[in-house]
Amino acid sequence: MTNRIYNFSAGPAVLPRPVLQKAQAEMLDFEGCGMSVMELSHRTPIFDGIITRAENGLRKLMNIPADYAVLFLQGGASLQFAMIPMNLYLPGRPVDVVHTGAWTAKAIGELQKLAEYRPAASGEEDDFTRIPGRLVFNADASYVHIASNNTIRGTQWRAFPDTGDVPLVADMSSDILSRPIDVSQFGLIFAGAQKNIGPAGVTIVIIRKDLAERAAAGLPTMLDYRTHIAKRSLFNTPPTYGIYMVALVTEWLAAEGGLSAIESRNQRKAGLLYRAIDGTDFYHGPVALEDRSLMNVVFRINGGDAALEEKFAADAARAGLVNLKGHRSTGGIRASIYNAQPIEGVQALVDFMADFEQKYGQVQI
Amino acid sequence: MTNRIYNFSAGPAVLPRPVLQKAQAEMLDFEGCGMSVMELSHRTPIFDGIITRAENGLRKLMNIPADYAVLFLQGGASLQFAMIPMNLYLPGRPVDVVHTGAWTAKAIGELQKLAEYRPAASGEEDDFTRIPGRLVFNADASYVHIASNNTIRGTQWRAFPDTGDVPLVADMSSDILSRPIDVSQFGLIFAGAQKNIGPAGVTIVIIRKDLAERAAAGLPTMLDYRTHIAKRSLFNTPPTYGIYMVALVTEWLAAEGGLSAIESRNQRKAGLLYRAIDGTDFYHGPVALEDRSLMNVVFRINGGDAALEEKFAADAARAGLVNLKGHRSTGGIRASIYNAQPIEGVQALVDFMADFEQKYGQVQI
Repeated sequence: MTNRIYNFSAGPAVLPRPVLQKAQAEMLDFEGCGMSVMELSHRTPIFDGIITRAENGLRKLMNIPADYAVLFLQGGASLQFAMIPMNLYLPGRPVDVVHTGAWTAKAIGELQKLAEYRPAASGEEDDFTRIPGRLVFNADASYVHIASNNTIRGTQWRAFPDTGDVPLVADMSSDILSRPIDVSQFGLIFAGAQKNIGPAGVTIVIIRKDLAERAAAGLPTMLDYRTHIAKRSLFNTPPTYGIYMVALVTEWLAAEGGLSAIESRNQRKAGLLYRAIDGTDFYHGPVALEDRSLMNVVFRINGGDAALEEKFAADAARAGLVNLKGHRSTGGIRASIYNAQPIEGVQALVDFMADFEQKYGQVQI
Repeated sequence: MTNRIYNFSAGPAVLPRPVLQKAQAEMLDFEGCGMSVMELSHRTPIFDGIITRAENGLRKLMNIPADYAVLFLQGGASLQFAMIPMNLYLPGRPVDVVHTGAWTAKAIGELQKLAEYRPAASGEEDDFTRIPGRLVFNADASYVHIASNNTIRGTQWRAFPDTGDVPLVADMSSDILSRPIDVSQFGLIFAGAQKNIGPAGVTIVIIRKDLAERAAAGLPTMLDYRTHIAKRSLFNTPPTYGIYMVALVTEWLAAEGGLSAIESRNQRKAGLLYRAIDGTDFYHGPVALEDRSLMNVVFRINGGDAALEEKFAADAARAGLVNLKGHRSTGGIRASIYNAQPIEGVQALVDFMADFEQKYGQVQI
């Protein structure tokens, strides 16, 4: 018997149980080949089948156009914050950045080393509780950088801006595969796998291939997208097991009905939780209604009572609802409810919230 | 029933069966926490316990001095070929490189983009069948670069050169943990995990900490060793599951008796195979006796009969001995017999070689 709990971690995060079960069953012997996936050379036809499953899985789910490459890289979004300007920045044409919190701050940190940039808008004056409304894009920008979802603040872009001929670059680490998007709106999409795609250690980059040609000659080989496009992510040994897990997750998603179906489920899950928050003054969501994330639901308890929030997270963990503590930079509570979070987990949290309010709501007010 | 075979892949390669069994058993529930290791946030005490196990496992096995950091990075040796000069090259002080084949060629390729370098010696004139003997090091070199084992040519440094005050940098991707070494002889050791340490997607860097201070300010954050030293490889999400596997492999190695015991076993395994090669003219090993690798045993059949070598690899695969084909750049046969290759696998190969010679040795000569 395994003792499974509901895991609300912001990432690495819960994975679909059938995916873990399949990985477990195949651990010592992948499809009768007598080896673990971890033991397969990346140069074998067997592994080629696996990486093809992963790539095609993503292509089908996201309807990725043929002029885009799908790359399986390493180093997380953090390395992309440097690789993107190294490859896509055109000298004299600053990058426009929409600043929505910690992740765009990190992107800006690398831009300061590698390129020129301009703030297209910043959510800082609103303490990042909303996606900025007035966006000032420049037609000569090298590209526009956004993060589609902020895991810490619990904000999410509902629709994406039209940047015309300027490529839109989106960090989708925390909401990729959670809803249908139009890939052709973007020049480059990147995402660490560890929230909605698979385990940590795989970074997905979806890039319109012509943009990779912007890079100057002389970039380190591993930091040049052309290397990985030309070799289909097999220039060197890729993170083979992680890619296998991506294949399994995409196949699970397809079996669940694809991205429209998962979006509906994500809306139901988030709706359940936001209604619980909005239905009482004991709980309070700081994010502007129209920018609330379907992936990371943040809320405060009793007007931001840190001791009570601490108790909430601790009591919830004892009840099998783990990793609900908000990010250390903001405090509060954060429930990450990615694709693999079952609705039963969200319902269990909502029930726990009602119990907790009954116990502590009166005495505190 | 699982259908396990003997896997002679050069990498990713065979993993210890008890390690895979433990990973399988713990897949859905790590030590009763109710989550898979893949689902654990890297910021939790549970994962901190895992990365500490992996680090301490390496420190104990290799007797790593306290002034060295042990880092768990991503990108493989291929990214290290760029990161090392980015961090350790001192302008005006060329890097000395001992060129022993494809892997030092790749290192040189990145040095050509990022630094100045000089050949300290090259095995090219001997077609890389030996480790060069006459090494010309310069006292003002930024560092000396070597690869301790060449997977393609089947050569291995038996002892390491004394480079005095010049830091010795070694690519140990294919023989780390196969024998005791004196870490204090090196300034930096790096290794992709996928041969002797764990699955692909983790790169181990063991660096004398003072050397990291050479790097200029303004390096991209992820490419600066100081980032990872300061944050104990937790600046961003590391390849968590791979690190867990590293912990398991180091614990398996310790239980097997540590590096001296595994070295003896590796010598027995390689001895068995080299005796089979040397005991007949049908098989022939091209590598100089004193530089033969204990990890990758390369040999030719019937003076380099490509069709017969092809048949050998195909027949062996049907007999459950897989991935014996030599690298495409050299042809021939290559048996990779890393730590996790059981002696039974080597014995099965030796038996197969005898059978094969009996069938095809006479007709071809």
